[in-house]
Amino acid sequence: MDGSKNFNVIHNAFSDLDDKESLGIKGKFFAGQELNLTGCEVSINRLPAGTSFPFVHAHKMNEELYVIISGKGIFCVDNENFPIQEGSLIRVAPAGERIIKAEEELFYLCIQAENNSLMQSSINDGFIIESNSQK
Amino acid sequence: MDGSKNFNVIHNAFSDLDDKESLGIKGKFFAGQELNLTGCEVSINRLPAGTSFPFVHAHKMNEELYVIISGKGIFCVDNENFPIQEGSLIRVAPAGERIIKAEEELFYLCIQAENNSLMQSSINDGFIIESNSQK
Repeated sequence: MDGSKNFNVIHNAFSDLDDKESLGIKGKFFAGQELNLTGCEVSINRLPAGTSFPFVHAHKMNEELYVIISGKGIFCVDNENFPIQEGSLIRVAPAGERIIKAEEELFYLCIQAENNSLMQSSINDGFIIESNSQK
Repeated sequence: MDGSKNFNVIHNAFSDLDDKESLGIKGKFFAGQELNLTGCEVSINRLPAGTSFPFVHAHKMNEELYVIISGKGIFCVDNENFPIQEGSLIRVAPAGERIIKAEEELFYLCIQAENNSLMQSSINDGFIIESNSQK
């Protein structure tokens, strides 16, 4: 990690995921520490077909955003089930009791950020330095 | 959007992206409002081969996390270029002057969260409701 620059990069974060393990869960990789993330945490996850995340869980302060990149499965929040697949985006409030189940192997991201922490975004937070037409 | 539940879902957020437009940029879709996100904003992006994001930009308060899902390109922060491809994760601090360029069509996520807003995460924020072995 190079703290002197305005960026950090992980190359090939999707590779060798089956060799990684976090919280005792195989195929799960938290990237926040290596990236020096300070506003959110992100995990990359591969869940084999026919399996579930090992527990139903909730959060104290953090909202979660799940992004399903590939595969098919069932998501459950507060005992309500719904199907998920490539392109499904799921927000879960801290109190939501959640679990994800894979019917076909699921590849997904999970992003945690503190509930109600985002003050502004998009054009209210970003500003243009230089437009391409000037380059 | 159903505010009475602990979750919101968008199905098929990756479809029809070429028909979507945000900030005057084709192929860009901000999902935060529809998902009722309060801790981060997320955009889904498709950048055609041989094109660049239309401007170099920076942020006032927010850190950005880019997740490259497919394609190849060049990322530039503060005039430093580096290659990106499937599985590249890039954190950019608010002040970083950034632009993304596609060599092959890029499909990527960009997540914005307030710099230094994450107080705790992972097992420090989540707690188990029920393990699978009890089900």
